[in-house]
Amino acid sequence: MLILWTQGDTNGIGSEVILKSFHRWRHSPHRAVVVGSYCMMKFYEKRLNLTTPLVEIESLNDIPMQEKTPDEPLYVLSLSCNIKANVGEIQADAGELSMKAVERAATLCLSGEADAMVTAPIHKEAIAKAGYPFQGHTDFLEHLSQSGRAQMLLCDIETNLKVALATVHIPLGKVSETLRASGLRPHLTALANALTKNFGIQTPRLAVLGLNPHASDNGVIGKEETEFLQPELALLKQDFCVDGLFAADGFFGAKRYKEFDAVLALYHDQGLIPFKMLAFETGVNMTTGLPIVRTSPDHGTAFDIAGKGIANEASFLSATHLAIQVAERRRQQLETTA
Amino acid sequence: MLILWTQGDTNGIGSEVILKSFHRWRHSPHRAVVVGSYCMMKFYEKRLNLTTPLVEIESLNDIPMQEKTPDEPLYVLSLSCNIKANVGEIQADAGELSMKAVERAATLCLSGEADAMVTAPIHKEAIAKAGYPFQGHTDFLEHLSQSGRAQMLLCDIETNLKVALATVHIPLGKVSETLRASGLRPHLTALANALTKNFGIQTPRLAVLGLNPHASDNGVIGKEETEFLQPELALLKQDFCVDGLFAADGFFGAKRYKEFDAVLALYHDQGLIPFKMLAFETGVNMTTGLPIVRTSPDHGTAFDIAGKGIANEASFLSATHLAIQVAERRRQQLETTA
Repeated sequence: MLILWTQGDTNGIGSEVILKSFHRWRHSPHRAVVVGSYCMMKFYEKRLNLTTPLVEIESLNDIPMQEKTPDEPLYVLSLSCNIKANVGEIQADAGELSMKAVERAATLCLSGEADAMVTAPIHKEAIAKAGYPFQGHTDFLEHLSQSGRAQMLLCDIETNLKVALATVHIPLGKVSETLRASGLRPHLTALANALTKNFGIQTPRLAVLGLNPHASDNGVIGKEETEFLQPELALLKQDFCVDGLFAADGFFGAKRYKEFDAVLALYHDQGLIPFKMLAFETGVNMTTGLPIVRTSPDHGTAFDIAGKGIANEASFLSATHLAIQVAERRRQQLETTA
Repeated sequence: MLILWTQGDTNGIGSEVILKSFHRWRHSPHRAVVVGSYCMMKFYEKRLNLTTPLVEIESLNDIPMQEKTPDEPLYVLSLSCNIKANVGEIQADAGELSMKAVERAATLCLSGEADAMVTAPIHKEAIAKAGYPFQGHTDFLEHLSQSGRAQMLLCDIETNLKVALATVHIPLGKVSETLRASGLRPHLTALANALTKNFGIQTPRLAVLGLNPHASDNGVIGKEETEFLQPELALLKQDFCVDGLFAADGFFGAKRYKEFDAVLALYHDQGLIPFKMLAFETGVNMTTGLPIVRTSPDHGTAFDIAGKGIANEASFLSATHLAIQVAERRRQQLETTA
């Protein structure tokens, strides 16, 4: 397998976790290639004293045609060296470079030249400054691959917890109307398909959380549950093995997620708070519903600790492992159906 | 100390956790008296085979004037036997009785006849059916004691985590406007006062969570942080030892709550999901800002397991311990200032 590691925002911890991951990855038979800026990789290699054999390439064709060996260097498909490091700062050109790396990697995955991409974190404000009208990786990849509906799936290899979000990077005050417009069906369908396609679970057991406190206590605290969520869920039970709406606090407190293959949370923090508590250093973010395989670590740019050498590469490595697992499963499925 | 245990919704697990707690409480020097329905206590005693010496009383004056002994019965200050058990069902008269017990207990605490109250869970829909215009215990006690601003403080004796909520039982879609109207100051003031008054912490270290995903990433995801939360917090730093706004998922994932005496969450599930995950069977809910001491367990009526004998009394017992600790501290403070 050939995996692409996109460098993420060059002022964050992306380059550091990539360098650290490379050293723990050398004995893997699978090759990982960085997409980003060779100079910025060099900068962090020196600054953090993470001596690494880095080789700049312009195209994947520059990599020698041979099996990977443990002493192979880390290839960097370099898009630009015309950028300065401002460690921990929000910078438009860093935002732009981070998105160009994602675009290049996606193109290589779409064409079949690479098998999967693992993305180091980008910074939402930096990409906004660079003029990109996207919230993050997910909607950008949706756009690049012209896919209908990409979905973020949070996976923890340790606890086997999987969480999907019905809404992601939108203001909390917009969650209700956004859900009312979309309904639950597209999210549940995408989640069930993702579990089948990527994890081989034929009839996944799904849980859906309520929106309001106590899942509204039957309409006493908010009307969304009684007006549209519960009625739609009743219909969905005909097509899916699904249960809910669960009050989110009690659901996670009582560890009821263990009864299900995946949980659909209705908004960002409802899913991310419990996920990060259970899987802080091992959690992986996967984008499903795309023609390509993409995973990422469960942390952000972490500007506060960037350039200090204290970033933890565990989640990035887990993301790489998961990307390979999923890419292999997809390849098998293609071979089976072929 | 004389503690009142209100029975909660008689169709839930309240009576059961009270009976179980009584047996683990017998050797305490502090007396706990039930306020509720003698007949409903009898019903659960028989149904669950939790043989308990129950004695019906009409007034606290009916209790013999002597030190408590381990073989003392469980006194039940009975308000009504004109009620039938419908285990696990929402019933208006159960809602009404549960509220009358809270009212009676509060009156006894306000008059100084009792030192604290520990409340078994009520059911929001049952009290709504009974015509009470209250969301739960907190606003009802605010009303009964004519106190300006009661606040729920979630306390875990094991981890020392304390969480307060800036909004509680309101629809998620109303959180933003409610916060905009109140601001952060009253909540932080109440929280700091509560920590000083009830726990003796003179200058509490406080953390405030952001509202939107990623605490809005500096205004990219929602405007509340940049428009009013962050500016107000900057001012509050002059008066309090406070930090924020923290993205809630990373804050709990990285266990940053350990750096603070208490956390102010901005809405119900943001505080309750992590609290219940960390303190599922030991967490206690305390109502601060009242002239009386009131605690409660960190679970609901649990209609799904009511009457089955499998309810866990750990949180109710913790709540009783905390009530006594706090009542003793308040008494000391009164003696010091007298």
